[in-house]
Amino acid sequence: MIGRTHGIHAEPVTFGLVLALWWAELGRQRHRLEEARREVAVGKLSGAVGTYAHLSPRIEEKVCAALGLGTETVSNQVVQRDRHAHFFCALANLGATIEKIAVNLRHFQRTEVGETREPFAAGQKGSSAMPHKRNPIGCENLTGIARLLRGYAVSALENVALWHERDISHSSVERVIAPDATILADYAMARLTRILEALQVDVRRMRENLDLLGGVIFSEGVLLSLVRQGMERQAAYRLIQRCALAAQEQRIPFDKALLQDEEVAKALGRDAIENCFDLERTFNRVEHVFARIGIFTEGKGSET
Amino acid sequence: MIGRTHGIHAEPVTFGLVLALWWAELGRQRHRLEEARREVAVGKLSGAVGTYAHLSPRIEEKVCAALGLGTETVSNQVVQRDRHAHFFCALANLGATIEKIAVNLRHFQRTEVGETREPFAAGQKGSSAMPHKRNPIGCENLTGIARLLRGYAVSALENVALWHERDISHSSVERVIAPDATILADYAMARLTRILEALQVDVRRMRENLDLLGGVIFSEGVLLSLVRQGMERQAAYRLIQRCALAAQEQRIPFDKALLQDEEVAKALGRDAIENCFDLERTFNRVEHVFARIGIFTEGKGSET
Amino acid sequence: MIGRTHGIHAEPVTFGLVLALWWAELGRQRHRLEEARREVAVGKLSGAVGTYAHLSPRIEEKVCAALGLGTETVSNQVVQRDRHAHFFCALANLGATIEKIAVNLRHFQRTEVGETREPFAAGQKGSSAMPHKRNPIGCENLTGIARLLRGYAVSALENVALWHERDISHSSVERVIAPDATILADYAMARLTRILEALQVDVRRMRENLDLLGGVIFSEGVLLSLVRQGMERQAAYRLIQRCALAAQEQRIPFDKALLQDEEVAKALGRDAIENCFDLERTFNRVEHVFARIGIFTEGKGSET
Amino acid sequence: MIGRTHGIHAEPVTFGLVLALWWAELGRQRHRLEEARREVAVGKLSGAVGTYAHLSPRIEEKVCAALGLGTETVSNQVVQRDRHAHFFCALANLGATIEKIAVNLRHFQRTEVGETREPFAAGQKGSSAMPHKRNPIGCENLTGIARLLRGYAVSALENVALWHERDISHSSVERVIAPDATILADYAMARLTRILEALQVDVRRMRENLDLLGGVIFSEGVLLSLVRQGMERQAAYRLIQRCALAAQEQRIPFDKALLQDEEVAKALGRDAIENCFDLERTFNRVEHVFARIGIFTEGKGSET
Repeated sequence: MIGRTHGIHAEPVTFGLVLALWWAELGRQRHRLEEARREVAVGKLSGAVGTYAHLSPRIEEKVCAALGLGTETVSNQVVQRDRHAHFFCALANLGATIEKIAVNLRHFQRTEVGETREPFAAGQKGSSAMPHKRNPIGCENLTGIARLLRGYAVSALENVALWHERDISHSSVERVIAPDATILADYAMARLTRILEALQVDVRRMRENLDLLGGVIFSEGVLLSLVRQGMERQAAYRLIQRCALAAQEQRIPFDKALLQDEEVAKALGRDAIENCFDLERTFNRVEHVFARIGIFTEGKGSET
Repeated sequence: MIGRTHGIHAEPVTFGLVLALWWAELGRQRHRLEEARREVAVGKLSGAVGTYAHLSPRIEEKVCAALGLGTETVSNQVVQRDRHAHFFCALANLGATIEKIAVNLRHFQRTEVGETREPFAAGQKGSSAMPHKRNPIGCENLTGIARLLRGYAVSALENVALWHERDISHSSVERVIAPDATILADYAMARLTRILEALQVDVRRMRENLDLLGGVIFSEGVLLSLVRQGMERQAAYRLIQRCALAAQEQRIPFDKALLQDEEVAKALGRDAIENCFDLERTFNRVEHVFARIGIFTEGKGSET
Repeated sequence: MIGRTHGIHAEPVTFGLVLALWWAELGRQRHRLEEARREVAVGKLSGAVGTYAHLSPRIEEKVCAALGLGTETVSNQVVQRDRHAHFFCALANLGATIEKIAVNLRHFQRTEVGETREPFAAGQKGSSAMPHKRNPIGCENLTGIARLLRGYAVSALENVALWHERDISHSSVERVIAPDATILADYAMARLTRILEALQVDVRRMRENLDLLGGVIFSEGVLLSLVRQGMERQAAYRLIQRCALAAQEQRIPFDKALLQDEEVAKALGRDAIENCFDLERTFNRVEHVFARIGIFTEGKGSET
Repeated sequence: MIGRTHGIHAEPVTFGLVLALWWAELGRQRHRLEEARREVAVGKLSGAVGTYAHLSPRIEEKVCAALGLGTETVSNQVVQRDRHAHFFCALANLGATIEKIAVNLRHFQRTEVGETREPFAAGQKGSSAMPHKRNPIGCENLTGIARLLRGYAVSALENVALWHERDISHSSVERVIAPDATILADYAMARLTRILEALQVDVRRMRENLDLLGGVIFSEGVLLSLVRQGMERQAAYRLIQRCALAAQEQRIPFDKALLQDEEVAKALGRDAIENCFDLERTFNRVEHVFARIGIFTEGKGSET
């Protein structure tokens, strides 16, 4: 499929690579969340101000262990709230990755792009007023949830600076954000999973969009080939721009325009030009990425 | 010194325990920041959309290694911004701990409390209008910086959801928050260090404040002693309240009021009552906390 | 041009209407900012704690008037920070509207949409690697600035709760956000203005996109016409869906599919069907909107 | 009572002045909230994309009027979210003022200060472990609520930048924050009202705290009197500092120390010195503030 930077067609990518990037990022978020959960899962039984004046630390350790909790190293009346702030920041960061995936799926589903679509139940109505519509409402919902999770992280970060051996200002905050943030994050992950598992991918539209600009998306390869032939980069850049403009004006494919251009044709020749438009070559090293993140890809040589 | 919960005198603590709690929390923040720094210190040279179409991953690894950076596992045009969001959240969390310490030092310096004071240069003016004042302006400054760091974390979390193979909306944000957040965090740590290194501690005021309520801060110990003698907790609680009230009305120390109370005196006896007011006993297990966090404390048995 | 809801083609709108909506919203933001500026432009000279112990309120009024400021009604050592929070929230809200316009211009400039483009200086390079690109970097920059302004608003809201007659924790915050937020907002407005003044509008692409779905975007009008003819809404909806599906499968325009459908053709007739596809009729009442916001539109009857 | 800046005793204020400041600020918040409510109370019936393609604006106006709503000037599928962001910012700002009052009441209730106390039901337990305690838990609760309201404002500001004629990402946000923010703000106002209506004010402690520093809080008045007598300000400042130090060392009141000081005594004389310690004179112009905010104060001349 076409890769886009700034929303503009750039160079070809594969949908697998897009998914691999999301997968790797979700892996990082999972790791962060596990770390944060581990950090927040500590208890304390050190008394009203943390001195163990009336109770031995041995009892604290036993009780915490029985509850499956670690023991806070130094506490006052409460476990310190930097641990909780860390946890809610991890949730907000996870939310931001869910948002990234959701926003990009919304882009893919735009009428003009049409490369993927959220699953749509048979008989489901897209719009009560407009019968032809199918809207990415699941992903829009997830986009909003990320905003909520960010808001909760702000509140949690303000909870750290309690007074002396504790004040209870954090309590009203946590009564709201502890259930809301965790439930929303869980819901968002579940909904995202359902969407991705049944995502409708339109390979034909991906191919069409790839061809939309008549091949100028391969211009960097041509540019580098010219440079490799000894042409000065600045000069090569001007040549490419001239051909891209000609292709656009005459409404012909970019490779034709390059072949028509005497200077380019002379410098590169037909084979070298056609090579630049070879998708297989473009994706030659993508395997390497999958290998890196531990997704096994058999049989294909990973030329690097 | 007196420990305070809800801003109200609770039970005795030691200033060392307060510092130990801050120390342990700063240790967690340091660990989080190191993790986040490690996470964000990765580079990529995978081309315009992340396919390595024109460059081998081997070159990426060499270049990143030469720069002292790790290599991003899956990238598109950029390293993904969840890494940066994590880093700015770690700075905001560190800021919140600095804020906690600063807010509590401001509490300690209140005229009515007077237990510690920010270092004050000889000849420094406290106030141009009011010659008698010494204000904790360093800690107030740090309190404000924490607010800035929280704001930057919000902006960083919004930077994650870039479009497709990258859009450049994160750039204007990072040009501001990358220098501002790191410089402010560094400044805040340095200023906090200067304040703590030369903090003026008024041991006399600490002792005076400890005695301010005439000993009712030891009421929990008396309560538990009565319970240990077989008294029902509810009944013991009512007894204690009665004595606390009597102490307040007659403006006598709490231990006197307890001794005057026939029921209490009979249940506990003078020695047991005096034992409840013994600071040494109260702090008997504090050593344990220092041992836990690896601060060596020689010669003292850590009864647990 | 085509109107889009959920990123999906909905019904036709005019670009003028889109601009009118932005214009009206910017008008609201301007009003909010003026109000907030007026609110924050007050001074005080009431002494160290607000009692005028050593200076008459008359002097305060004179000095403030000389500075072009209003006088704070009740102050302590400072003007209260709810006024400043209100101002920074107004800046953040303005930033959000700038973001909205910027995000939508980025959508319009997507390769697949191509309806508008940021002005591009002759000779400007779109991409050092990819000679064919023209990126909406101005609007991306503005999108990021909105994130910064939101972060500053959070910090400003935390500045309100000062201690007693003032603490100075707000000062470190305001030293950063006062210049940064105002300069960024000014810069953003100026940059947005430059972009909008020289925006390149591609009327041909707008027309092409309008036709992209072969006319199903007019389905609501057909639906309502059927209902107006006495058909039950549910039944009409099913009819429309059937025709929309047929149009898609046979790759024929929607109006053709409707005419082919015996039930629809019988219920409406050719003229009534064609009427539903009449853009002029669709936009008949748009004039009314321009009249509402005081943009004079001569000669055209505003049928309502 | 004593006025405090930076938490340090500054100059005398009256509790009425403190309340007047809160009252004036709550008045501003009320005004902002009313404005924001008015702004957000608009409806629209302009069709799926805002063109009134199938419905006359006259119907919109009638329906909105029947619902007690204003009519949006320019809408697309929805009323624009800058209006809602403005509303949630107003709630967050109100929350910040509630927080300010709550934080200061918590300061007043500190054991060492003891000037006011939250109402406490007869028989209410302060602490299950510590029978002597009365904690300002209402105000702590309110402090936390302000943090939540700030978080919601952040989320609301992110809702403004919807795509094209609307996307539905704002919906999941508003389903949470619309009920939560309004209910919390209402609850917070009601709880604050209950606290203030039955606030226990300890006039004796106020007076004691006023005397805590032995009168050095009047130093600015003495300083200005010396200057009025023709002494150079720098010299007067040094004199005052010397006397303040002497008072502290000899544990005598500040006025005694001033009278003992030959230079001061010569420059001012006993009467002028005693005048500086006259609370009535200090509060002479406070009436003016109450007059400004429309609180009638009969019979007292407001010397200005």
